[in-house]
Amino acid sequence: MKLVRFGHTGAEKPGIVGSDGVVRDLSAHVSDIDPQLIGADSLQGLDSREIDALPAAPAGSRLGCPIGNIGKVVGIGLNYREHAKEAGAEIPKEPIIFLKANTAITGPFDDVVLPENSTKSDWEVELGVVIGRRARNVSEAVALDHVFGYVIVNDVSEREHQLERGGQWTKGKSHDTFCPIGPWLVTRDEVGNEQALDLWCEVNGGRVQHSNTADMIFSVAQCVSYVSKFMTLLPGDVIITGTPQGVGLGFTPPRYLDGGYTMRLGIAGLGEQCQSVKRYGRG
Amino acid sequence: MKLVRFGHTGAEKPGIVGSDGVVRDLSAHVSDIDPQLIGADSLQGLDSREIDALPAAPAGSRLGCPIGNIGKVVGIGLNYREHAKEAGAEIPKEPIIFLKANTAITGPFDDVVLPENSTKSDWEVELGVVIGRRARNVSEAVALDHVFGYVIVNDVSEREHQLERGGQWTKGKSHDTFCPIGPWLVTRDEVGNEQALDLWCEVNGGRVQHSNTADMIFSVAQCVSYVSKFMTLLPGDVIITGTPQGVGLGFTPPRYLDGGYTMRLGIAGLGEQCQSVKRYGRG
Repeated sequence: MKLVRFGHTGAEKPGIVGSDGVVRDLSAHVSDIDPQLIGADSLQGLDSREIDALPAAPAGSRLGCPIGNIGKVVGIGLNYREHAKEAGAEIPKEPIIFLKANTAITGPFDDVVLPENSTKSDWEVELGVVIGRRARNVSEAVALDHVFGYVIVNDVSEREHQLERGGQWTKGKSHDTFCPIGPWLVTRDEVGNEQALDLWCEVNGGRVQHSNTADMIFSVAQCVSYVSKFMTLLPGDVIITGTPQGVGLGFTPPRYLDGGYTMRLGIAGLGEQCQSVKRYGRG
Repeated sequence: MKLVRFGHTGAEKPGIVGSDGVVRDLSAHVSDIDPQLIGADSLQGLDSREIDALPAAPAGSRLGCPIGNIGKVVGIGLNYREHAKEAGAEIPKEPIIFLKANTAITGPFDDVVLPENSTKSDWEVELGVVIGRRARNVSEAVALDHVFGYVIVNDVSEREHQLERGGQWTKGKSHDTFCPIGPWLVTRDEVGNEQALDLWCEVNGGRVQHSNTADMIFSVAQCVSYVSKFMTLLPGDVIITGTPQGVGLGFTPPRYLDGGYTMRLGIAGLGEQCQSVKRYGRG
């Protein structure tokens, strides 16, 4: 299944993508695509004929983040081999963990708004893992049983705030609109091998990132297991599993975002997202 | 007002402390003490006579965290002069920000459970600032207008996970039960000068921390304003404003928590909290 949420910000309705690619309104069946629904896994009964019979969402509806009321977004740092190299960092011996404020979450086609005076805002295409079942101290062997599905996430990062303002990455990772998620929440059964997914990012139409989840240092199963040793993961929580090479910081000289730029990101089977970049307080 | 939530974990009811010190049941008036209630500030009408006429909570009721459904817990690092000294750190030029997973939140008298094999778990008494009105990029001059009230928070921290496992503090700050909050959410009008509050922590009956919020490097108003430049603060969000000297890490040799230990913490006007320390998987 490809689950979505459509409508105005803060008033999204639950939806599902039919076999014809049309977004259909699920609100007669469920109140929202949220941690409660994801934890109950109560959509398994719907078959494709029933889905295609649902009313279509209004044409041109905005898509929001496909999960409402996310509890936490856990980031894994430096998790692609080639990205660690471009960052001049050693291959981590164990995953680096950080948190992104959940107020940063936004829809997949919403504007990304740079903070005032930002000169080092950067893109990061990432595979987002959506937890389906509570996970605390779970082994790698069973970790994927706790995964509901996958999403594209742009882990937008202000590098000066992340790296030059005290050392904790939180400041650079948490600005409003710095966490576009979606368009679809794709259930695990439809994604196939999560370690063989192409992913890419284009800035102003030029491809800057292109890799495959096969280059991850720590697999999805390892990340879920590892994070669950430090905090309990709940349904709807999202782990973003690191970005491949090609971020702005890795260019010589570095390349960063500015007002008027566009970002387009995609992961095989998970669709595409696209954002216009604005500057705070300006059009 | 002194607001509380009483009852079993996950099923707490809203309550308020009467003029006689008795916890009274507010559930006929409001559904919960949560971000929605705090943002609406709809309790201002209640007078003390009405409060004292409310039914008492059942004797011996457990107290939970006095705020339900907290969106985020933002930590300020190294924010007391004497603590920065004992940590061998320079006085920060600007606040250090980190996030604590909200799954770490627990009640003020609940057990603190050490992760498996933890040898460096530590205490930190902190003044918690509860946001009342949305704050994004607010000035210091108006920052306190966005504060609803104050709580005691124990920012329990596993130092090995915090400092020796990749550099981001998240791992050491986010374990389940590592964020006891309460007992009371005291509204700002009752607290007086937030920069003149005594705070202390005892471990196994011996006082280890004792200071005053006057020793903060960055005031509450400065912290709220500063954090709001990096992320939007919403009603119910909690900023924990750093801990004074006397943490286990600061002793020579360091002193850390173990199963069977007790912690007792207090802040002037905000009550006291007390936790028994357990080891994960043991009694």
